[in-house]
Amino acid sequence: MPTPEKALIAEIRRAAGRAENSAIRTGIGDDCAILRLPEHSKNPIDTLVTTDFTLENVHFRRNWHSPESVGHRCLTRGLSDIAAMGGNPLAAFLSLALPRDVPQAWVRRFIFGLLSLAEEYGVTLVGGDTAESLSGILADIIVLGTVPQGKALLRSGARPGDRIYVSGELGGSAAAVLAMRKNPKRKLSPRNYPRHFFPEPRIKLGRILREKKFASAAIDTSDGLSTDLAHICEESGVGAEIESNAIPRASVGRPLHEVELDLALHGGEDYELLFTAPRGKRIPSRIASIPITPIGHITRHRKIFLTNRDGIRHELRPLGWEHFRKT
Amino acid sequence: MPTPEKALIAEIRRAAGRAENSAIRTGIGDDCAILRLPEHSKNPIDTLVTTDFTLENVHFRRNWHSPESVGHRCLTRGLSDIAAMGGNPLAAFLSLALPRDVPQAWVRRFIFGLLSLAEEYGVTLVGGDTAESLSGILADIIVLGTVPQGKALLRSGARPGDRIYVSGELGGSAAAVLAMRKNPKRKLSPRNYPRHFFPEPRIKLGRILREKKFASAAIDTSDGLSTDLAHICEESGVGAEIESNAIPRASVGRPLHEVELDLALHGGEDYELLFTAPRGKRIPSRIASIPITPIGHITRHRKIFLTNRDGIRHELRPLGWEHFRKT
Repeated sequence: MPTPEKALIAEIRRAAGRAENSAIRTGIGDDCAILRLPEHSKNPIDTLVTTDFTLENVHFRRNWHSPESVGHRCLTRGLSDIAAMGGNPLAAFLSLALPRDVPQAWVRRFIFGLLSLAEEYGVTLVGGDTAESLSGILADIIVLGTVPQGKALLRSGARPGDRIYVSGELGGSAAAVLAMRKNPKRKLSPRNYPRHFFPEPRIKLGRILREKKFASAAIDTSDGLSTDLAHICEESGVGAEIESNAIPRASVGRPLHEVELDLALHGGEDYELLFTAPRGKRIPSRIASIPITPIGHITRHRKIFLTNRDGIRHELRPLGWEHFRKT
Repeated sequence: MPTPEKALIAEIRRAAGRAENSAIRTGIGDDCAILRLPEHSKNPIDTLVTTDFTLENVHFRRNWHSPESVGHRCLTRGLSDIAAMGGNPLAAFLSLALPRDVPQAWVRRFIFGLLSLAEEYGVTLVGGDTAESLSGILADIIVLGTVPQGKALLRSGARPGDRIYVSGELGGSAAAVLAMRKNPKRKLSPRNYPRHFFPEPRIKLGRILREKKFASAAIDTSDGLSTDLAHICEESGVGAEIESNAIPRASVGRPLHEVELDLALHGGEDYELLFTAPRGKRIPSRIASIPITPIGHITRHRKIFLTNRDGIRHELRPLGWEHFRKT
């Protein structure tokens, strides 16, 4: 009988074999994957690498999330980091450790969810590792991408006076977690919470921000607005002023309703792009069909302030999705 | 109070900052790491990528292994894969999930063990991910390397008539596991079992095998000789004949004694190189100061046979380290 690991490798091989990518030489089945990255002395590139864990009962629960959703979200975590740098994703690697009790069907559906998204973005799954886990499903996704040399969007480029923008809407993913925590037995419909169950990484938006030189700094909202804005401020050595009225809050659930401000401020895993642009720069209100909303500006002082709807201004602390999420 | 994760990132940043590597542009602290890989139109390269889990109670135990040993072994897993392709390691990424009960000192010593080895091989730790684990320490190491274009040593290059060689000695790592399992309370001295606690990846050997065109196929012995030879045979579409008398068995423990044949045949995590070479090729008995031992030859038929010391020949099944290791 094949071990779960052997069966898994065979499964991934079969599935990954469908994808095609001229940059990949040898994929699954050797000690390393071999990538032949595009090489043009006229258009030199930088290589982007990102790694992200997806751990059972930390990032997902088997009774809350379908295997397809877990696979999709797993890859989105990596692709979203590439998007935040304005990069083009190229290849993915999956390290997957499974407990003995995971049904083969779960793995197949997980891989299907991951590969469907990979195909959408022209990403090939080229390798990884498999192991037995003694407790819970453990996945680590590695995504490689490229960007023209020296052109990656960094967190460190924000300057005083720059305007702050965010794509899409915030808090939708956290709202789903909150709803599931309130009522752990009821399965949520992914259709009512798409940004939680099947978030699309903002690859095209990131690329346009880079190509059109719109953004001075960028990050994806994986940890929540307050934390991710703090990351930009920290790396850039600046502060920020934002307005609660301006923050685009997600509409979720059934009946559709707007999420609370707290969720939009601190809830993570929306995988939108948060970026800054020099004051004079005209930023379209939609880019790649995604609404772009100005929410404030960068300041010299190294603190972040929020002005609420009553005009009262107070310091905004990065509450952090990690703590917010926990039961 | 800083969360364990924040403290960890700070720790890694501080430690990794010591390393220097001209190929690394932006390391820890942005959405992705940015690598500027060497680019020469005259000497084009392929990029190698490998990922490997190191999971508590699967790959190590906190009461058996010092944190330095866990960090060292974690990186060796990745470096050894680069060695098996004849590559040059360049950069490493660490995804690390920690339970709340892990002391800061453990993490610091783990990172120290990992970075000491990284420094030895000119590898920079440039990124990764941190998370909270609900059960056990979970690490995933990703190593990137380079190799001249089209020159990587593959598993698939073995041809009938090729001789089979192995570097160093086998079974030493498994012997340590066996000793610890027999007497779980007693701490083994790493000095008596160096290949288990502080295995050196065979980077220089792999590079020489490639440069001198010695090897037709190669793999590292991470899963154990019987399994790793089966991998070469499977990928090359061939079989093999090996002699038990010829297999170099490790000497371990105190008093020093040779390990049983079973451990040398099936015990994994020795991180030696197993390679094949065309029959006519003269292979030195030492390469890069490491003994090289011929143990058999490649055949046309897709099975692996072992001839024992009494001249009796029987089929050798890949028993597999994964099963062997488990209690």
